[in-house]
Amino acid sequence: MSYVREHGVRYTVNAGDPLLRKRIAAHYDYPQLGGSENICITTGSQEATYAVLQTLLDPARDELLVVEPAFPSYAKMARLQGAAVRSAPLGEDDDFAFDAERILHAVHPHTRLIVVCSPCNPTARVISRADVESLSEGLLRRGGETVWVLHDEVYREQTYVQDAGHFAAAYPYTIVTNSLSKSNALTGLRLGWAMAPDDVMPSIVKVHAWLTSCADSFAQRVAISIFGTPGGIREHARWYAERREEVVQLLAASGLRFIAPEGTFYACVRLPSDASSLAAAHALADRYDVVAIPGIAFGACFAQWLRLSWVGPLEAVREGLSRIASFVEGECA
Amino acid sequence: MSYVREHGVRYTVNAGDPLLRKRIAAHYDYPQLGGSENICITTGSQEATYAVLQTLLDPARDELLVVEPAFPSYAKMARLQGAAVRSAPLGEDDDFAFDAERILHAVHPHTRLIVVCSPCNPTARVISRADVESLSEGLLRRGGETVWVLHDEVYREQTYVQDAGHFAAAYPYTIVTNSLSKSNALTGLRLGWAMAPDDVMPSIVKVHAWLTSCADSFAQRVAISIFGTPGGIREHARWYAERREEVVQLLAASGLRFIAPEGTFYACVRLPSDASSLAAAHALADRYDVVAIPGIAFGACFAQWLRLSWVGPLEAVREGLSRIASFVEGECA
Repeated sequence: MSYVREHGVRYTVNAGDPLLRKRIAAHYDYPQLGGSENICITTGSQEATYAVLQTLLDPARDELLVVEPAFPSYAKMARLQGAAVRSAPLGEDDDFAFDAERILHAVHPHTRLIVVCSPCNPTARVISRADVESLSEGLLRRGGETVWVLHDEVYREQTYVQDAGHFAAAYPYTIVTNSLSKSNALTGLRLGWAMAPDDVMPSIVKVHAWLTSCADSFAQRVAISIFGTPGGIREHARWYAERREEVVQLLAASGLRFIAPEGTFYACVRLPSDASSLAAAHALADRYDVVAIPGIAFGACFAQWLRLSWVGPLEAVREGLSRIASFVEGECA
Repeated sequence: MSYVREHGVRYTVNAGDPLLRKRIAAHYDYPQLGGSENICITTGSQEATYAVLQTLLDPARDELLVVEPAFPSYAKMARLQGAAVRSAPLGEDDDFAFDAERILHAVHPHTRLIVVCSPCNPTARVISRADVESLSEGLLRRGGETVWVLHDEVYREQTYVQDAGHFAAAYPYTIVTNSLSKSNALTGLRLGWAMAPDDVMPSIVKVHAWLTSCADSFAQRVAISIFGTPGGIREHARWYAERREEVVQLLAASGLRFIAPEGTFYACVRLPSDASSLAAAHALADRYDVVAIPGIAFGACFAQWLRLSWVGPLEAVREGLSRIASFVEGECA
């Protein structure tokens, strides 16, 4: 508050406070994204994504390729902007592991941008370094017009495997989006950012300036403090890692088919093959007092799955899984 | 801060905190915009405007009509979205007074939305009740597809005339945008809103949700407090009104042709007819240490004007006007 008393609550420059941008760039230290000029502070990663799509996609010719299962916002945003969307569905057989071959196979002559969320909302899978390298090599080998990769890293600090891959470390045409919403449980602060190479960032900043002018300068002060504190962005990471171990045990004991979370704070469980995830989610909410997100929201390949959140009390997670198991046994048998 | 300690910093619902929306609706008490469901809280009025344009304009057929001189963002946003833009230039002879006949004359079969900023950035003119009524009647008489009016009221609390018109009070197809940025000098808080009738607001909220999810919940708490304080939104109004009297005297003494501000915290002065406002603004910045915005940024009809801000110290305003007068005498004679 003393900062506000002294400085008021003024606009920052459109791209955001230079000190914050410098700290973010230094923290991640990605090749080509290391300067403050590679960072644009936004109203959450949501606005960052919107600005990146609006900047890169020409509705008259470009397509967005969405690796599915995926959070629905990418496709919704592109369609709102008039751009075509194609999906690259991952496979259920290997629990929707990221698979460079599958993704490369879905790339089309009009593909201008591929969006990958890892750790993944909803699957909780994490792309490996090897898969990032395969996909990068494949895209570079392909020739023709540049295909950009948008790596949504909003769950980066909820990663529970060792060999997580980062496109920004391997592929020169990478744009990263991220925020404080998940890492620091500050969803309401709406403080996110895009990271992009020198040649596209000025255009992203222009689009961002017309979208929202600049991010909240109070929220930017909070972010400056977090990135100025050693380990500030990892403050909650241990809690999630410990909780994840307990959740995996509960999932294993539930008798449900599940995907062991490699990241995020979600876990996905499978319904019997003829079940509708939408009907199941409604039934669970209406009659079992359990909230589950129907997999169909994340793509057709996920239509038999439910996404569960495990940030609530552990006892509630245990009880929720038990009710879902009862539902599956009693009504889907 | 105690609120944050108790509640954390969570998302609000997409449209914004229900209490804030209720207070805003009650404060303005516009017909058809009186319920909390008529308010969507946004990242400044900038995002509100972007969401309204994205919602109402179909790039395949609709045009935006911008009443000029106008802040450049309306046309830039529409073009970014792929929509066509037409301008309705006001006349220099009457100091760019809002003129319903001129505006009606510019309405085209493809016009879907007219954007009017009053009090006006840049001219500092205010639309009268009579002109709002004439324009409303003309649009209703016209028949055919509905033409919406977007009334940007961001300078509403800086109004210095008695008969200010409000489209929302007279025309059923009005959307209003506003924010705390100017009224409470909280530009950095990025807290704005759109007000729209029942039939379009749900679509605006959907677009807003994809743009930014929701506005900063901390900023929303600040706004709840301002709208919960009698006179909170008018806290700075008297300062501006008093300062405006002094500025009019300084303008009159400067020898420059000027538009007496009816609203905002701007004043516009005219350059000699053959001068370029862009060249003049550069010369003033480079050699006279005076910042002035070149009129050409606000439309061709304003190409011989400069927009000045008078929120700085009065002595600086006096000195700035004197330097502009010297520049005009010395270099434009």
